[in-house]
Amino acid sequence: MSILVVGSVAFDTIKSPSGRVEKELGGAATYFGLCASYFTDVRIVAVVGEDFGPEQEAVFKKRNIDLGGLQRSAGKTFHWGGEYGENLNEAKTNFTHLNVFEQFKPQLPASYRETPFLFLANIDPELQSEVRRQMNGTKLVGGDTMNYWINGHRAALMETLKLVDLLLINDTEAKMLAKETSVPRAAQKVLAMGPKALVIKHGEYGATIFFGDGSFKGIGHHPFRAPTLPIDEVKDPTGAGDSFAGGFMGYLAGQGKVTRETLKRAMFYGGVMGSFAVEDFGTRRLQNLTRDEIEERFQIFRELTHLD
Amino acid sequence: MSILVVGSVAFDTIKSPSGRVEKELGGAATYFGLCASYFTDVRIVAVVGEDFGPEQEAVFKKRNIDLGGLQRSAGKTFHWGGEYGENLNEAKTNFTHLNVFEQFKPQLPASYRETPFLFLANIDPELQSEVRRQMNGTKLVGGDTMNYWINGHRAALMETLKLVDLLLINDTEAKMLAKETSVPRAAQKVLAMGPKALVIKHGEYGATIFFGDGSFKGIGHHPFRAPTLPIDEVKDPTGAGDSFAGGFMGYLAGQGKVTRETLKRAMFYGGVMGSFAVEDFGTRRLQNLTRDEIEERFQIFRELTHLD
Repeated sequence: MSILVVGSVAFDTIKSPSGRVEKELGGAATYFGLCASYFTDVRIVAVVGEDFGPEQEAVFKKRNIDLGGLQRSAGKTFHWGGEYGENLNEAKTNFTHLNVFEQFKPQLPASYRETPFLFLANIDPELQSEVRRQMNGTKLVGGDTMNYWINGHRAALMETLKLVDLLLINDTEAKMLAKETSVPRAAQKVLAMGPKALVIKHGEYGATIFFGDGSFKGIGHHPFRAPTLPIDEVKDPTGAGDSFAGGFMGYLAGQGKVTRETLKRAMFYGGVMGSFAVEDFGTRRLQNLTRDEIEERFQIFRELTHLD
Repeated sequence: MSILVVGSVAFDTIKSPSGRVEKELGGAATYFGLCASYFTDVRIVAVVGEDFGPEQEAVFKKRNIDLGGLQRSAGKTFHWGGEYGENLNEAKTNFTHLNVFEQFKPQLPASYRETPFLFLANIDPELQSEVRRQMNGTKLVGGDTMNYWINGHRAALMETLKLVDLLLINDTEAKMLAKETSVPRAAQKVLAMGPKALVIKHGEYGATIFFGDGSFKGIGHHPFRAPTLPIDEVKDPTGAGDSFAGGFMGYLAGQGKVTRETLKRAMFYGGVMGSFAVEDFGTRRLQNLTRDEIEERFQIFRELTHLD
């Protein structure tokens, strides 16, 4: 089944211990869409400026990603600049030029409104809720958020969380959202806010999915943990979380059903796509993968964690 | 096969958000020995003072731990005082009274010298090397160390690392020892210092075992990662690492052989024992476990991580 992602398409200028790139194609919807495209049909709703040209378009086209919901506005595309020191877990933002993204009002083409799987990437929770309400008969809604919305727009975010089936955030965000210091306790509090399941990403240590009382039917209460690959050289961690979400949600959409089995595999595919993302700058590694390469890495993840 | 552990037996006075205990039985050799005792015969070489009485002795006796190598000195037993804030990953030391431990010179009873498995808990690397040299025909030597020795006694530690088959340390220690910021890169550098395999403990995220070029025969080069349980309430994290080591080495000794299969299961049993350790203060939870409880938790660890 197809999946719709609403979020940012952007340019990133990134410095890391492995080098530097200028105006590299990025943005949450880009990372997410490319990763999901290896598993299912992808539609993107986003906004770009006049500097988004055929070169960038070709990246999406090559992966058969539907750009019918891509708005083109006068002005420049969202441009983020950041750098990573030796501690690759934390980015230092050098600049954030929102440009056309500042006035982003997601408009869903009529043909998009019944897309069975929806992912609300990290944007203003009010916009996330608005998009959700434009949809009809959606089967599964995934969502992301960040510290900025958790701290400054809590009320709006609480409304969004009631509309989201699956929330994907990291340790710090989960603790901040729940006002808790223990991750497992934070998970239970966040689940009480609405989502049926919560994926907490642990950076280089993988991710855990937690289930609440009102979770998917027949899913059970036991959490499940997927690893990431211990990678010697992480070139650029930008977009690793969005890539995880793309692999995770894309796999679920491709399978068309949410069971304990598909969720567990989705966690592995999320980790797999995140591990590819960080191997090169921007989305480079994600543009030319093959399903064979993905399956091969899936097997490495299995061997990394399985006893038998 | 039996295992010998050389390290500290101590009293701990601990405060955590869950409460406070005074002069609770602790020390690396105690945690290690109790955990290993569920898998094999355990011998302890340590030193205690006059305040170590029948009550403490009974804890070891109940687990059939051989105290023939326990030295009794005039004075008081090593006493550590520390506390944990909401961030349970870091202890704040309130006092360290080394007492009789300050003059600890491990003396191995003649009958101990051919014990097939040996664990050198976190003590002065010069003493670790001395113990190793007192042993004859040992099959496998495991070791631990800490920041204090890594920073202040590097030369002595480098000598010890040549005598150790398996080193168990945490992320911070591995990075410090290798002078590296990436864990996988640090792992390769530490393996080049001598050990055949390196277990890096990631606290609440589990642990990874890495193998070097000159590793155990037929072991392969792929790392293996075991989880820990997401525990809602960690009462007291003291000794979690020593408990991991006790489960890990104890299981290997019980099996009597080091293969990829036994190492993988040992990683799981390490995590299992660590997860029990933190559920109550000191070694309380570790004194009265059953093999059934251990196997049950092993299955929970399996379900937490396995696809099928």
